[in-house]
Amino acid sequence: MSYAVDINCDMGESFGTYVMGRDEEILDYVTSANIACGFHAGDPTTMRKTVKMALEKNVGIGVHPGLQDLAGFGRRNMNITPREAYELVVYQIGALHAFVEAEGGQLQHVKPHGALFNMAAKDASLSEAIAEAVYDVNSELILFGLSGSELVKAGEKTGLKTANEVFSDRTYQNDGSLTSRLESNALITNAEEAIQQVVRMVKESRVKSVDGDDISIQADTICIHGDGAHALEFAQNISSTLKESAIKIDKISNIL
Amino acid sequence: MSYAVDINCDMGESFGTYVMGRDEEILDYVTSANIACGFHAGDPTTMRKTVKMALEKNVGIGVHPGLQDLAGFGRRNMNITPREAYELVVYQIGALHAFVEAEGGQLQHVKPHGALFNMAAKDASLSEAIAEAVYDVNSELILFGLSGSELVKAGEKTGLKTANEVFSDRTYQNDGSLTSRLESNALITNAEEAIQQVVRMVKESRVKSVDGDDISIQADTICIHGDGAHALEFAQNISSTLKESAIKIDKISNIL
Amino acid sequence: MSYAVDINCDMGESFGTYVMGRDEEILDYVTSANIACGFHAGDPTTMRKTVKMALEKNVGIGVHPGLQDLAGFGRRNMNITPREAYELVVYQIGALHAFVEAEGGQLQHVKPHGALFNMAAKDASLSEAIAEAVYDVNSELILFGLSGSELVKAGEKTGLKTANEVFSDRTYQNDGSLTSRLESNALITNAEEAIQQVVRMVKESRVKSVDGDDISIQADTICIHGDGAHALEFAQNISSTLKESAIKIDKISNIL
Amino acid sequence: MSYAVDINCDMGESFGTYVMGRDEEILDYVTSANIACGFHAGDPTTMRKTVKMALEKNVGIGVHPGLQDLAGFGRRNMNITPREAYELVVYQIGALHAFVEAEGGQLQHVKPHGALFNMAAKDASLSEAIAEAVYDVNSELILFGLSGSELVKAGEKTGLKTANEVFSDRTYQNDGSLTSRLESNALITNAEEAIQQVVRMVKESRVKSVDGDDISIQADTICIHGDGAHALEFAQNISSTLKESAIKIDKISNIL
Repeated sequence: MSYAVDINCDMGESFGTYVMGRDEEILDYVTSANIACGFHAGDPTTMRKTVKMALEKNVGIGVHPGLQDLAGFGRRNMNITPREAYELVVYQIGALHAFVEAEGGQLQHVKPHGALFNMAAKDASLSEAIAEAVYDVNSELILFGLSGSELVKAGEKTGLKTANEVFSDRTYQNDGSLTSRLESNALITNAEEAIQQVVRMVKESRVKSVDGDDISIQADTICIHGDGAHALEFAQNISSTLKESAIKIDKISNIL
Repeated sequence: MSYAVDINCDMGESFGTYVMGRDEEILDYVTSANIACGFHAGDPTTMRKTVKMALEKNVGIGVHPGLQDLAGFGRRNMNITPREAYELVVYQIGALHAFVEAEGGQLQHVKPHGALFNMAAKDASLSEAIAEAVYDVNSELILFGLSGSELVKAGEKTGLKTANEVFSDRTYQNDGSLTSRLESNALITNAEEAIQQVVRMVKESRVKSVDGDDISIQADTICIHGDGAHALEFAQNISSTLKESAIKIDKISNIL
Repeated sequence: MSYAVDINCDMGESFGTYVMGRDEEILDYVTSANIACGFHAGDPTTMRKTVKMALEKNVGIGVHPGLQDLAGFGRRNMNITPREAYELVVYQIGALHAFVEAEGGQLQHVKPHGALFNMAAKDASLSEAIAEAVYDVNSELILFGLSGSELVKAGEKTGLKTANEVFSDRTYQNDGSLTSRLESNALITNAEEAIQQVVRMVKESRVKSVDGDDISIQADTICIHGDGAHALEFAQNISSTLKESAIKIDKISNIL
Repeated sequence: MSYAVDINCDMGESFGTYVMGRDEEILDYVTSANIACGFHAGDPTTMRKTVKMALEKNVGIGVHPGLQDLAGFGRRNMNITPREAYELVVYQIGALHAFVEAEGGQLQHVKPHGALFNMAAKDASLSEAIAEAVYDVNSELILFGLSGSELVKAGEKTGLKTANEVFSDRTYQNDGSLTSRLESNALITNAEEAIQQVVRMVKESRVKSVDGDDISIQADTICIHGDGAHALEFAQNISSTLKESAIKIDKISNIL
């Protein structure tokens, strides 16, 4: 039996003179890049630069649409309607697509950002609006969602290819949802433990919940972080451990 | 000899709860719509709605990229670099294109807005950056610029089809530039006079300057306004007078 | 027995070239103006102009702080923390205060806008943060909140003077809260009925709920609207009916 | 003869999750802090935090109003009117003042930022509008401007106390203006040379221009930078060298 998984990371989150993330270095360890589109982070200059780097390193390019909340980095839930979600996703896909087109590349996927991602995970109407937006602009794009979430379901229902995303450094509830960050046991701070959780999710499609139960989980793509003191080191470690575990790391469009 | 001209109008300039222009009505009298893309005006909701209306009325759809100055409606000159101009034009073309794609239509043209349009008219570097942006995203798009301006020249040099734009209600200098709005004789307030100026520009390629000289001018498309008390009436009048003068009114993609 | 009530209206909601409301005319019928501060609506130019008009007409000037959501007009709930609420209220009080200071006037009150007002009505922590922000900047300011709400309670607890606000055109639940706008019976569309509801709230401190029960309600200030087709007419009618009903209309600082 | 000078630094330029500058450390070496107000940089959270730190370290607090251009960090010239300059300065003074008020402190000065500072240096109308804005809100505030510039002249004319600002790391033209950054000799990269230029400006009121001439210059306050690899080291060095040169470093309100 052969295993393959995609590693994705949020990118292009700098804004104007503000720099965020170590994009150029982290790109060496990921296979898919989620590029911010100017709503929660990013700007035209950063988008262009990030698209170029991703193409040079043969990394799959994804749209990372967020809420229009630069001050809150798109992390604060906002009570938007499904129609508004549709429209902001269409807009942001288009904006990034133009840079990809100008550089002679192709879009691979769409992964909603932050609060939009989290709200969609539990809200079928919002998820359906997002999936329709993606489908209406380009039905070949792959939709990323939290593994087993409403967003993945909506993508499948709409006729899109979908990727179930898992997190290496987050713990899971019995229902497959992530433990809220408000809980003390939300994060896995031990890097080795985090990586082993991923290996098991990929090879066995199972993860141990915070209650100690073994639950099913589909792992098509792993989310890692591009900022923080140990981001680069962690990226290197997870990459080498996956390879040692006979798991091929490849961009999602080559896997699905 | 047969004559044809395009009539264009700025559209989709509403923002959030703020309404601007009588787009739906004015669309009956124009052949090309320049749709704002969220930088100087417009938002995803308005863009989607305006694209739908334009497609229903078979009006050519244009991107109307502006400076990132919502508070100033993109009318205040900003000292941006050619690189920044390139990037904001790419971004805005993409954003509008996605809505057009989602509705099953096609983009026809790009017309920079306000201060970007005016700065480009006299600045070859800025114009070249704008023309390259258009070309790199979609080399089939038609670039609108002030008749005889640097923007039109840059478009031709880059390999784009271009449209020379004239204004019905503005007076001209001997060098073919518009009289500055700071001058008292900048505007033609008599509607009939304004319309006759256009008829002559289309049929004779000539216009009388403020100094009384007859100068050459190319008129591929006429800019009219969508707001103001008499916008609709003027649109009706110019439309009917042009037709009576044996000038066909057609979208620019059918004329060039 | 003598009765007095304040009439307040949202003002200064224009932005850049976008015009909203008939502020100058409506100012003749209100005693307190809630002036937008550039977050959900308004801008420095509009703030200055609105402050000048309010001072000329001797109308009480209030800060109308909103969420940083211009695209949504501050009407979409956002998951901000109490600390963020504190900070955005401090900021917006200061911004408006400077214009009032420059014009030689004085601030009278603070009334949160839209989603911030509605969230605070039910959220004690948010309300306490808002009340502290007001108190810390100027402990003489009067805090407006939905009659009987958490915001009024927090204001009293903090040591501020508070004003219980009622709505003429909204129906009430048995617990004193407003019927949600999602319900078909949320609005009172008959102007005469709306005005009589207000007269009774002021004189008897009672209102009939949607369930037909008589409930207690404190009415220190009445909110009316400044836009819409009949805003001005309604303002005139409510003003004259209140006077005919022996209710004095006066700014809140003269009543409390 | 005794000498005294103020050292000022731009502060509070972080925005949302974006961090800029090493404010806390640099505050140990400066006597006046120019705090961004949310237009070109900064936000309510950052303003509050920066005001608190400055008060704790007994540093003079200044308003640092900028153009509404977050994407360009307020560094791109914009064609605003004097009226608009007046309004944006009033607004930003107020916003910062409220945080200072809430923390029990006092404002000391106003220093326009970036393009607004540079445009005002050469534009008397713009400078007069800015000076009037400061005066109208609080006539006790000290206005910072480029030494000998139109902004300083306008401040004096308006009746404000003014501070002539000099730069340690910039070269000067014969007319006392800064050498444009577009020129190769605009910057003094040798730290020791930069510091000695300042010492001479303070003690002799003279500086050597790029043409080798000795010109007069008034040095009330020195601008240093808070970001960059060597910002902190430079701050320490200039501080110790000034003290060794018998120049007292004190906040501008204690000097004028």
